[in-house]
Amino acid sequence: MMKKEFGPFFEPKNVAVIGASATPGRPGNDVIRNILANEYRGAIYLVNPKGGEILGLPVLPSIANLPDGVELAIIILSAKDTPQALRACAEKGIRHAVLSAGGFAEVDQGVKIQEELVEIVREKKLRVIGPNTSGHTSTPHQFTSTFFPLGKIRRGTVSYIAQTGNFATHTMKYILTGEHFGVSRVIGLGNKIDMDESDALEYLADDPETSAIVMYLESIKRPRKFLEIAREVTRRKPVVMLKSGSTEAGRHAAVAHTAAMAAEDRLIDAMLRQAGVVRIWDYTHLILAGKALSMLPLPKGNRVSFLAPSGAMLVVLSDLCVRLGLDVPEIEPATVRRLHDISPPFIRMRNPVDIWASASVRGVEFGYREGMEAVLKDPNIDAVVPILMLTEDTGIPSYDFILDLKKRYPDKPLIVTFSADKKYMDECKNYLEPLGVPTFPEIEQPFEVLSILYKCAKAMNRPEQK
Amino acid sequence: MMKKEFGPFFEPKNVAVIGASATPGRPGNDVIRNILANEYRGAIYLVNPKGGEILGLPVLPSIANLPDGVELAIIILSAKDTPQALRACAEKGIRHAVLSAGGFAEVDQGVKIQEELVEIVREKKLRVIGPNTSGHTSTPHQFTSTFFPLGKIRRGTVSYIAQTGNFATHTMKYILTGEHFGVSRVIGLGNKIDMDESDALEYLADDPETSAIVMYLESIKRPRKFLEIAREVTRRKPVVMLKSGSTEAGRHAAVAHTAAMAAEDRLIDAMLRQAGVVRIWDYTHLILAGKALSMLPLPKGNRVSFLAPSGAMLVVLSDLCVRLGLDVPEIEPATVRRLHDISPPFIRMRNPVDIWASASVRGVEFGYREGMEAVLKDPNIDAVVPILMLTEDTGIPSYDFILDLKKRYPDKPLIVTFSADKKYMDECKNYLEPLGVPTFPEIEQPFEVLSILYKCAKAMNRPEQK
Repeated sequence: MMKKEFGPFFEPKNVAVIGASATPGRPGNDVIRNILANEYRGAIYLVNPKGGEILGLPVLPSIANLPDGVELAIIILSAKDTPQALRACAEKGIRHAVLSAGGFAEVDQGVKIQEELVEIVREKKLRVIGPNTSGHTSTPHQFTSTFFPLGKIRRGTVSYIAQTGNFATHTMKYILTGEHFGVSRVIGLGNKIDMDESDALEYLADDPETSAIVMYLESIKRPRKFLEIAREVTRRKPVVMLKSGSTEAGRHAAVAHTAAMAAEDRLIDAMLRQAGVVRIWDYTHLILAGKALSMLPLPKGNRVSFLAPSGAMLVVLSDLCVRLGLDVPEIEPATVRRLHDISPPFIRMRNPVDIWASASVRGVEFGYREGMEAVLKDPNIDAVVPILMLTEDTGIPSYDFILDLKKRYPDKPLIVTFSADKKYMDECKNYLEPLGVPTFPEIEQPFEVLSILYKCAKAMNRPEQK
Repeated sequence: MMKKEFGPFFEPKNVAVIGASATPGRPGNDVIRNILANEYRGAIYLVNPKGGEILGLPVLPSIANLPDGVELAIIILSAKDTPQALRACAEKGIRHAVLSAGGFAEVDQGVKIQEELVEIVREKKLRVIGPNTSGHTSTPHQFTSTFFPLGKIRRGTVSYIAQTGNFATHTMKYILTGEHFGVSRVIGLGNKIDMDESDALEYLADDPETSAIVMYLESIKRPRKFLEIAREVTRRKPVVMLKSGSTEAGRHAAVAHTAAMAAEDRLIDAMLRQAGVVRIWDYTHLILAGKALSMLPLPKGNRVSFLAPSGAMLVVLSDLCVRLGLDVPEIEPATVRRLHDISPPFIRMRNPVDIWASASVRGVEFGYREGMEAVLKDPNIDAVVPILMLTEDTGIPSYDFILDLKKRYPDKPLIVTFSADKKYMDECKNYLEPLGVPTFPEIEQPFEVLSILYKCAKAMNRPEQK
């Protein structure tokens, strides 16, 4: 049902760009560049009264000139011109549209225009994304309606639902330039006159291309419906959400009236938890969570082992694990023996693992490889974090042993972080991440990741409720 | 008094390296390289029974061959050879020594040797750092006793006291390769048989080269003395501390027995707060706090303005400010008017500032420059955070306007963070930071910084207690 309703957004056989522009830098031009850069394989129809040719594609003078059977329209016109175009599309039999126009607050009749759009959608039985959306993306179908210049969008398995134009634009730009993971579907909800977070979540729930869902919401339009869908999907796929504590309109008030907000927020928090949605609190964690869910299995439990080149890090990170609800358990006697085997005799080996002496005396690669394998093998351990010491002093290891361990222990999340020389940290990230091992520049971040992943695993396995 | 007691550690007229090594990669060799790389201007005497020459410097065969008047010895021998060397130094009239030997747990007589060192120190009235210290640094004097290969250590105004070898080694390596700020004094306390955190804090309290102090402690040797000193110095200089919740020995237990630890930790927490010490919780914040205190004035209050290119960021970061104890207040009507002047008419301008429309329509540099100046001028605002949008789409600004604003509003912390293209984020950091404007890659970090700085300011201005 969802597939039928929303499929043409994510797997359109063809697309019409209403408001195609010949001027580089204009949204109506950038959207075409993005579609081409993503190597979309369906037919692309451009509409602009001026006609001619844009980026090598012919331009039709009007919507009426479109052939029959167009599945999806991207209407990239001003707010005031949007209703008429939507109506024309409907008359042409196009049932799905992305309404890119923003600035509904910019014209005096903004509210009225939006009401008109609602009316057209209802009357013509259309499905629309927006208005005021920065677009959506579907990498499995090599398609995007985003008008922010992004070029080729990396394919991945995590999908995003974002009630902010920023995600599909600047944040995606960061992911594409600063990270190595990709995305599956990205939906910018905009003013959500039709498709809302409940629809989007329901679609992604059954989407075979989506392994996990990360959301940013400022409001929930149909809370009961949303929680009903969330309760079900969170048993099959992780759902992580940044829910800001205030509404768009109440943003300013939120800061002034903390107490009231906090009460409302506690209620939302409880409902989301009950529905198995894992809440995050920082904008940056939208990226961190997506990266983690793209590259890591969910841990079986919260029992962590980590290997640090510093006693101070062992202590501070143990403290952090406690704060994050992670356990740093005792390990098997056989594991302890193995750790003693690889280390000079004077260090007491246990979990967490002080790897400095082993790595210094017997080599960085040997120490970390053998130490990591020892704890990966241990039945008491669900996830492993090496804090690699990267300095010329003790030598830079080849990182292939980490790939090998990942392959041999696929069920235990393995997350890399570093200490020491920035240059080698960057090199390590750029080597390991395209091969599927996530790294994080700050030593606390792998533990924040594990805390999120563990909550996702717990939500999936939570007992049934009536 | 402190100056007299500890001065020779930080401003030695000359230094003897006992255990100088000709072998590259050995600590006894790297320490000499570090001293030379830092362009130390005092005489350097090397001692090794083999004699000869190391790195162009003559080597004396024994401590007895040293000239009179040597102020400081770096004894970089094995644990078992350290007591005899320390005694010989004392007999030669050397009253200050850095005991680099580690591995006191490595030899069966480790405890006994340490007791012997304590005895020598007492008997001969010496002052020592260590044993088991990775050394100390004094950039104003172009001197270091660190044996980890660091090369030239960047000079700054913040001093560190660290009860971990990691800080003076790997963490300093990160600071030197990944950041642009420098340090003044760095003291690795090691096993602190003589100089402890109270001594170090007391020395730095009156040190004109130290503007702020950042500490990492696992234990406090003389809590009463420490708090007495801390209470006084925190009225003059910010003191920030990462105090891990467990002792070196109890590290493992700490994880197992959280409840007990939490109680003890609450007590320490209350004492530190009363003494005006600002506590941090993450290892990474040792770097973040040092960077912030190096480059920023303390804010007069907790009233923040920030400029973001995204409504979502405005909301989420407002929430974060509330969590961090920061206020995002109303601004003057004149400021609001100014913000409206620089923006297209359809955006409601207030604090926090939605700068997207202004930056998009009137240019990134114009929007941020005028927007930042408007809020910097406002008497209700104590600190300003621009979240720069850095993409080729809207153009990359010249960053000189930020330097200009920093110069014209020197009393208000100005902290930069970014959104969008990683390449330009790195460029921006590398341009602004050497010129004194701190940047942070994650949009939450400037607010964490402001929370720490505000607590420092509050501690300095706290009311007198009996």
